[in-house]
Amino acid sequence: MKRRLKIFAGQSNKPLANEICSVLSIDPGKLTYKKFSNDNIKIRIEESVREDDVFVIQSGYPNVNEAFMELLIIIDALKYASAARVTAVLPYYPYVRSDKKDEPRISITARLVSELLAATGVNRILTMDLHAPQIVGFSRIFVDHLTFRTIMADHFMKKDQDNLVIAAPDAGSAKMTEKYARMLDVPMVVMDKRRYSDNEKAHVLRIIGDVKDRDVIIIDDEVATGNSLIEAVNALKTVGRARRLYAGCSHGVLSNDALSNIEESYLEEFVTTNSIDQTIRKLPEKMTVLSVAKLFADAIAAVHMGTSVSKLFM
Amino acid sequence: MKRRLKIFAGQSNKPLANEICSVLSIDPGKLTYKKFSNDNIKIRIEESVREDDVFVIQSGYPNVNEAFMELLIIIDALKYASAARVTAVLPYYPYVRSDKKDEPRISITARLVSELLAATGVNRILTMDLHAPQIVGFSRIFVDHLTFRTIMADHFMKKDQDNLVIAAPDAGSAKMTEKYARMLDVPMVVMDKRRYSDNEKAHVLRIIGDVKDRDVIIIDDEVATGNSLIEAVNALKTVGRARRLYAGCSHGVLSNDALSNIEESYLEEFVTTNSIDQTIRKLPEKMTVLSVAKLFADAIAAVHMGTSVSKLFM
Amino acid sequence: MKRRLKIFAGQSNKPLANEICSVLSIDPGKLTYKKFSNDNIKIRIEESVREDDVFVIQSGYPNVNEAFMELLIIIDALKYASAARVTAVLPYYPYVRSDKKDEPRISITARLVSELLAATGVNRILTMDLHAPQIVGFSRIFVDHLTFRTIMADHFMKKDQDNLVIAAPDAGSAKMTEKYARMLDVPMVVMDKRRYSDNEKAHVLRIIGDVKDRDVIIIDDEVATGNSLIEAVNALKTVGRARRLYAGCSHGVLSNDALSNIEESYLEEFVTTNSIDQTIRKLPEKMTVLSVAKLFADAIAAVHMGTSVSKLFM
Amino acid sequence: MKRRLKIFAGQSNKPLANEICSVLSIDPGKLTYKKFSNDNIKIRIEESVREDDVFVIQSGYPNVNEAFMELLIIIDALKYASAARVTAVLPYYPYVRSDKKDEPRISITARLVSELLAATGVNRILTMDLHAPQIVGFSRIFVDHLTFRTIMADHFMKKDQDNLVIAAPDAGSAKMTEKYARMLDVPMVVMDKRRYSDNEKAHVLRIIGDVKDRDVIIIDDEVATGNSLIEAVNALKTVGRARRLYAGCSHGVLSNDALSNIEESYLEEFVTTNSIDQTIRKLPEKMTVLSVAKLFADAIAAVHMGTSVSKLFM
Amino acid sequence: MKRRLKIFAGQSNKPLANEICSVLSIDPGKLTYKKFSNDNIKIRIEESVREDDVFVIQSGYPNVNEAFMELLIIIDALKYASAARVTAVLPYYPYVRSDKKDEPRISITARLVSELLAATGVNRILTMDLHAPQIVGFSRIFVDHLTFRTIMADHFMKKDQDNLVIAAPDAGSAKMTEKYARMLDVPMVVMDKRRYSDNEKAHVLRIIGDVKDRDVIIIDDEVATGNSLIEAVNALKTVGRARRLYAGCSHGVLSNDALSNIEESYLEEFVTTNSIDQTIRKLPEKMTVLSVAKLFADAIAAVHMGTSVSKLFM
Amino acid sequence: MKRRLKIFAGQSNKPLANEICSVLSIDPGKLTYKKFSNDNIKIRIEESVREDDVFVIQSGYPNVNEAFMELLIIIDALKYASAARVTAVLPYYPYVRSDKKDEPRISITARLVSELLAATGVNRILTMDLHAPQIVGFSRIFVDHLTFRTIMADHFMKKDQDNLVIAAPDAGSAKMTEKYARMLDVPMVVMDKRRYSDNEKAHVLRIIGDVKDRDVIIIDDEVATGNSLIEAVNALKTVGRARRLYAGCSHGVLSNDALSNIEESYLEEFVTTNSIDQTIRKLPEKMTVLSVAKLFADAIAAVHMGTSVSKLFM
Repeated sequence: MKRRLKIFAGQSNKPLANEICSVLSIDPGKLTYKKFSNDNIKIRIEESVREDDVFVIQSGYPNVNEAFMELLIIIDALKYASAARVTAVLPYYPYVRSDKKDEPRISITARLVSELLAATGVNRILTMDLHAPQIVGFSRIFVDHLTFRTIMADHFMKKDQDNLVIAAPDAGSAKMTEKYARMLDVPMVVMDKRRYSDNEKAHVLRIIGDVKDRDVIIIDDEVATGNSLIEAVNALKTVGRARRLYAGCSHGVLSNDALSNIEESYLEEFVTTNSIDQTIRKLPEKMTVLSVAKLFADAIAAVHMGTSVSKLFM
Repeated sequence: MKRRLKIFAGQSNKPLANEICSVLSIDPGKLTYKKFSNDNIKIRIEESVREDDVFVIQSGYPNVNEAFMELLIIIDALKYASAARVTAVLPYYPYVRSDKKDEPRISITARLVSELLAATGVNRILTMDLHAPQIVGFSRIFVDHLTFRTIMADHFMKKDQDNLVIAAPDAGSAKMTEKYARMLDVPMVVMDKRRYSDNEKAHVLRIIGDVKDRDVIIIDDEVATGNSLIEAVNALKTVGRARRLYAGCSHGVLSNDALSNIEESYLEEFVTTNSIDQTIRKLPEKMTVLSVAKLFADAIAAVHMGTSVSKLFM
Repeated sequence: MKRRLKIFAGQSNKPLANEICSVLSIDPGKLTYKKFSNDNIKIRIEESVREDDVFVIQSGYPNVNEAFMELLIIIDALKYASAARVTAVLPYYPYVRSDKKDEPRISITARLVSELLAATGVNRILTMDLHAPQIVGFSRIFVDHLTFRTIMADHFMKKDQDNLVIAAPDAGSAKMTEKYARMLDVPMVVMDKRRYSDNEKAHVLRIIGDVKDRDVIIIDDEVATGNSLIEAVNALKTVGRARRLYAGCSHGVLSNDALSNIEESYLEEFVTTNSIDQTIRKLPEKMTVLSVAKLFADAIAAVHMGTSVSKLFM
Repeated sequence: MKRRLKIFAGQSNKPLANEICSVLSIDPGKLTYKKFSNDNIKIRIEESVREDDVFVIQSGYPNVNEAFMELLIIIDALKYASAARVTAVLPYYPYVRSDKKDEPRISITARLVSELLAATGVNRILTMDLHAPQIVGFSRIFVDHLTFRTIMADHFMKKDQDNLVIAAPDAGSAKMTEKYARMLDVPMVVMDKRRYSDNEKAHVLRIIGDVKDRDVIIIDDEVATGNSLIEAVNALKTVGRARRLYAGCSHGVLSNDALSNIEESYLEEFVTTNSIDQTIRKLPEKMTVLSVAKLFADAIAAVHMGTSVSKLFM
Repeated sequence: MKRRLKIFAGQSNKPLANEICSVLSIDPGKLTYKKFSNDNIKIRIEESVREDDVFVIQSGYPNVNEAFMELLIIIDALKYASAARVTAVLPYYPYVRSDKKDEPRISITARLVSELLAATGVNRILTMDLHAPQIVGFSRIFVDHLTFRTIMADHFMKKDQDNLVIAAPDAGSAKMTEKYARMLDVPMVVMDKRRYSDNEKAHVLRIIGDVKDRDVIIIDDEVATGNSLIEAVNALKTVGRARRLYAGCSHGVLSNDALSNIEESYLEEFVTTNSIDQTIRKLPEKMTVLSVAKLFADAIAAVHMGTSVSKLFM
Repeated sequence: MKRRLKIFAGQSNKPLANEICSVLSIDPGKLTYKKFSNDNIKIRIEESVREDDVFVIQSGYPNVNEAFMELLIIIDALKYASAARVTAVLPYYPYVRSDKKDEPRISITARLVSELLAATGVNRILTMDLHAPQIVGFSRIFVDHLTFRTIMADHFMKKDQDNLVIAAPDAGSAKMTEKYARMLDVPMVVMDKRRYSDNEKAHVLRIIGDVKDRDVIIIDDEVATGNSLIEAVNALKTVGRARRLYAGCSHGVLSNDALSNIEESYLEEFVTTNSIDQTIRKLPEKMTVLSVAKLFADAIAAVHMGTSVSKLFM
């Protein structure tokens, strides 16, 4: 009994889905999406998926609640259409930063997301660059956790890097930043976001470590409004007296005025990926978008064929 | 160990929640709702609910996906804050009309909704006038299924009803309409929505039964755009030559031009409830909104106290 | 690894199982059924089913409790004998009419049936013409819901139908009756089973719509004692002054005096199926039994092969 | 919030239920049992059980399948009527002897029974003298396993027992028989049911151990047709030359000709209990029925009150 | 998609695993076992198992808790490495004798073991000669329960057996001993471990049945310290005046002074298997170790290929 | 119905359990622990716990596998003894550092631990200072996650701290270290454990930030062999030229030569807690053990009483 590979896409990131299908030389699966006047979504899968091996691509931005409910409905439709296996492909995991209970009486929503996916009977999750690697353990679904670090590091490797240093924008990012620092074999610094009582320069971040006259790459997993990033850039430039500044993040949410702020900042280049659809806006000149399509296509092919893929995974 | 009664409300229908709390003479539970620039919702419960008996009120309109995700997050926060019992109060059940697989490869989303609620560990559901009573069986959560029929029928009972007849707007509503007809002890008719090949008057509904010179109440569980209702009204008036026309529905979605169409129609009165928040729009003169607050407050009190409540339930 | 198709039958409807096997050109699976003096049933599967694709056929009548327990025991034996997949084939779903909680403190037994099947680890359900399509959602087991409507409609299509009308025996059947009316493209009427206070003719059903001088087909999903049917027939003939009367139902329980009552009624023909074993009694002349064997055989073959089968399903 | 103690009974052993209620000085819970012409059972609980502590009494004989389905339906109705806790009281556990897979491709139906009970959400099981104590582990439901051995042993203790010996009717009963032998502090023998090749007396059981001129009590957990028992009696009398013979069993199924065979046998007395309803037949003179009502009433009271009850349990 | 057969071994019985692999002509799967200074175990599977059919061999002795945790961790690693199916091969089932609640407030740990295995998502269990066959029903995992009886009986069949008798070391073993007696077609006796009040010879076991001048094989499923066995041997020799004495058990735990006690006893031969690793100690001359490797290899091959294997199973 | 508070302890940390009981003025619950010659553990709860609120205290060191299996068996015994609620109190969470899949084909054993606990039906977990806060989300069990940071910070607050700095021993600890730095309102530095290619001083850690002439507190969640700690101490002293050095960790595993290495190091003081039993060894002079008993006792009382406890939790 054959299990054909099929890829369906939700509304959140169709260009990426198309690119992945293109890499794999298959046509995207056909489905009809309809939104009724009472805001209900209706999904109809327009081709047989009986006993097939199906992947559904949906990102956690924009409109994460709408997009996530749509994903659950697509999966439900596929499962009840007797797909043999359904894998949720989440280039940007929904609610990924809500991963711990650091205040009383809040939801660990990334865990809830995992439980809700499990409730649909989805068989696997394929995702990339989670805020914390522990999120993989938030349900009993098997998660393949890809990393974009190698590709991102390769991009910066091409820079003149005699004098490079990697900056973690806050203490929580230090671990992840260190992995980049190892790959590029350069030193790292950490931004201390606290305002010290003994700090004569109020409103300025302190830099743990030295960046003077160095080129600095600020690395984060996600940039939303970009305010933290711009603050770090300013501190590295004006307080730390760094030379050139670059920034890279896996998930470019880039909400509010992020794009214009980046364009007007000291940054030479801002690198992100299409884990979130970047085709919906006009991108500033300083911005470089690297594609995750090849990475996901390779992983999907490996999962489908059952071949060893550990080198793709974190 | 006391189990205090607490009621929290999502964003969808706070006026109803307040009214219910007012009937029960308790203050609404405090929670903070925040929506971030990346569209993520954050809920923080602002008072201890440890070992309490908590009810959360959320309707399935407007913005059903946003509202439903918010509900799931609130429940998750409450459960992990060690509430003894959490009851989801759903005056208008999300995706209630998506209750069967009448096309290939679609989701029975009302069932999915029930599964997703179950995945949060919610203990009970309290809802009203479901599109089909079978929906109660869509998960293992205990559902108390209230009916507004008695109150709705009482409202129409006050009309001059010597010559009344109840109209089902389509064959699928005939069963529910019959219950109203029994309560009011009047005849019923059924609208046949098909366009017959032998029908000289195209675009006109056929009426099964006789309404000539009679006052007709069209009953439905939900009115969305109102197009079907207005078609039925027109057919009953112009083809069936009915005298006065009334309409009643449990759930007034009233999207698109529903309100103005109703206002401009042959209808004398359109009756609905606040199971969906009706305070957000200016209501037309013909529209009467009956409150479900007393019904839900009584049910919540009964569930909380463990007293017999079968008379409130369908 | 091959997955051979195997079909086993419980005690309730062996002739249908044999007919299905005959259509599929396979031998029925061998099992030994024994009932001990303490009323315990023992099932032994008499051939290897390891890694096979197994279907078990059992109807919900007669002796539904005995038959259903037998079905559960057969499934349990098959699962623990390492069958790769077990599908419960339920031509007449057990307790199908117990699908809602329309009285306080009763069981929704059709839902319980679904949960009990799920508890055995059965993989799929294949059934036909459920009383309500929502029953499909009563558990997380995948249900393929066949319909006999096309075949039934074809049978009546061959009648002289210039003047045909379809009658729903009660308001609850109106929706299903309408589907037949659409297929045959004829008008429909609905029987109003209430006794009106203003009705001079006590004990007579009211007919919503007009049947005078018309040929009427009364359609229901199930006929048990036939009392409602005969009442409808009498009303249509004596009050509605219909010409010829036919009746069709998917599931012919035909308990008590149903057969003789039908034979002595105004009905010209009563059509049902072998979803329930009809070979155990002498059938009256007016009765026509259409076979569901081809329909189920096609569905079993499609499920087994993983080919698209949406056209067979409701 | 009070949790009232309520006891409901299925159709299988109402006299025992009444006796238990009488010991506890409470009225039996009210329910309506109806069997329709299509063999469907309908149960309606006729009093509120919301937040109550409910026990349901049902035996596994007679009509075990019918009785067990009825039990599941009663439990389902009670759970959905919001009983706080439901305990299944099974004086004679259904399918208790089907507890192992000693042939290929059979069901361990006692395990299935446990799974099906679990599927209803029942909270506890209260049962007595299981065929094997391991059955307690067949599901995650908490089982209180009572033993009647103390009461049974007390009964025989009153016999003249200078010369008593306990006989296990087969090797499988040796363990349980030994417990009786310990309590009565007498020797035991074991019946060897095999026909030896070197046995000159064909068709006669061999006795392992010596019973000559001794009074023998044959102990078993269950007697169905009584054939094995009578064979043992005959062997002990004619081959072993025992003096007086007694027999005791916890569960008196007594199907087929068991009663008359016992009456006509060498047995002086046959002792059993009302774990199975014995009021439905005329009992022979040799038969003594001991009541389990006090034992179950004590256990129910202890479970209800949460007091220590280990002395009642095996 | 191929599903390659792979066999991994924990630390408890690697010689058996190697022997099984040798019979099947495959290399053992590669894994790295590391124990950290904080006593944590780390397992890394050193080859791809994606979509493979994997068997893990681990015995319940020695260091059962350490060994069982290691097994759970191996299974967890294999499942999350996307093995298609994982079967736990347990030649000696952990905590197998803790199978009933014969004291208040103890754990039925054999049941817990089964639940814990189920929690890892393991797909099947393959085990041998359980203390009680009911243990198979302790979870919903499919268990293939092999028996070594045929091979053990064959071994003794080669003895001079004109005058043989089988002895059960206690009443609880009578059922299992009887199966051996049937296979060898010889009589059986049962040891009564109680000290009778009327027994002139204190501290001596009573023998139910006659062994005078006969050769006796004492059969048990497990021998731990051997104290019970030696007591039985002594009683059979000195009280029963048996001729030659043999003993056989499936699982040779042989803790404390078991080996030297056996060597110094009246036993002519003590036969056990390598279900527990026997290579770690110097075996006494009287001891014969039969290999279970062929039995398990055949079962693994049958499970892997999906061929009928009922003849291998109990 | 009262729910008495009861506290039981496993073998791993009885002194802490006794201290907690002492704070709460209750006697420790009685249980018998026995280890058989076949390494099987047997637990018998020696007092009734029916309907009680039970807490079980067990640490993840020493002998984590033995201790964890013992914990599971205790919980199993308590649940089946009908305790109303069982909370696992894990001062040092087993396998806490195995919280992510940072190599292919390994187990996230901290997640497995959580699943295994869930499999026993345990109701809650109470733990302290997890390696990563995400671990709370590794199962659906409710986790109260205490922090010892406040008490630890208070301890160091008493030091002369004009010139204090907090050091994270590696990038992964930076986030947690920052929380201490905030509480003490002092700067932080981060140890970079990589050996840089451009580093003239091989084998020496680089310090990100400045510690010259400052007093440094190195903070970690767990110290096992202490090698990393001593390396950090040496680097801070010899490369960074720090003045005085202190270290603090929540969980003092202190395996191998940790104690003597600490004693002989540049450290002035090493502070840890009794989350792991420290009474089993002679403590060096430099070592201070702070008790977590009050913290856990307060949390247990709060959970038992259902009072708000968010201030105790992280």
